Amino acid sequence: MEILKERILKDGMGIGTEILKVDSFLNHQLDIGLLNAIGQEFFTLFSDVKVTKILTIEASGIAIASIAAQYFKVPVVFAKKAEPNTMVDGFYEADIHSFTKNKDYIARVSKKFLGEQDHILIIDDFLAKGCALKGLVDIVAQSGATLAGCGIVIEKAFQGGGQALRNQGIRIESLAVIKSIKDHNINFY
Amino acid sequence: MEILKERILKDGMGIGTEILKVDSFLNHQLDIGLLNAIGQEFFTLFSDVKVTKILTIEASGIAIASIAAQYFKVPVVFAKKAEPNTMVDGFYEADIHSFTKNKDYIARVSKKFLGEQDHILIIDDFLAKGCALKGLVDIVAQSGATLAGCGIVIEKAFQGGGQALRNQGIRIESLAVIKSIKDHNINFY
Repeated sequence: MEILKERILKDGMGIGTEILKVDSFLNHQLDIGLLNAIGQEFFTLFSDVKVTKILTIEASGIAIASIAAQYFKVPVVFAKKAEPNTMVDGFYEADIHSFTKNKDYIARVSKKFLGEQDHILIIDDFLAKGCALKGLVDIVAQSGATLAGCGIVIEKAFQGGGQALRNQGIRIESLAVIKSIKDHNINFY
Repeated sequence: MEILKERILKDGMGIGTEILKVDSFLNHQLDIGLLNAIGQEFFTLFSDVKVTKILTIEASGIAIASIAAQYFKVPVVFAKKAEPNTMVDGFYEADIHSFTKNKDYIARVSKKFLGEQDHILIIDDFLAKGCALKGLVDIVAQSGATLAGCGIVIEKAFQGGGQALRNQGIRIESLAVIKSIKDHNINFY
């Protein structure tokens, strides 16, 4: 998606070889016009599959999923993050390790809002090592719903998470796929 | 806002005298059509003031603020929640006590994204004792921006936060104002 790549080059900030900061338009301040273009692009990419609900995870995924959901005309469910020791009945849960924050947490979705009749599109802002996405895929599997696919805004391909999940037969569409980061040099596939 | 009140009566769940659960349409599963109606209503209510940015706080406020921002045609900034002991330079910060979760946290907004040229509309899902909203108002004051007002989806008036802030001269527009909750009986003003 060209306008996204151009925006990353213009306003994104590479730090070292692993980190890309996009907090001026994607995950702290939100450019709603860009999010609309992203939502439309996901709708085009996934127009060949049935989608009854969009699943994301707090916090950065919520804006993108909500704007995209307007095109699909379906509800959004966002997984909540909780401390690992707070077990609650009535939820699908997945353990997730955050490399960014170097901590473990539980992603939790009420059983009321996902079931076997659903066709789920997962949407998130980043895909790096794939821990969060694996957790969401696991929650969809627990619910018995059909996984329609995963829409990712920025995939850091060099961190391997996308490849590992695609090898399991999961469909992932990423709007910008990054080959390498070296400080101010951000290279796309 | 009638359709919101009807929805609360239909799908909201009062627990005891203080808690209203609206997780099936507002803060876990999101009814995007309803959020669009809410966004339009905020746009109508605040059409008399200048708004250059919408400020909210993760996580439940993000979807509402992002959908509303499409009508105002402005960016959204969402305050991030952090543990009280993680100080970072370059941020406006406010201490907030969450009665719902019975813990303290810091709300943090990068100084890059709020400044004295801004006219800020704060949007959030709930107003109860007003701790989160007070924190966001404080962050706007630190930035030197003009506070255009606060748009709240559901105000639990009996918990007093709204009155205290209005007494300070802050404009708050709440789309559904609850007088009392007694289990399944939810009474509006």
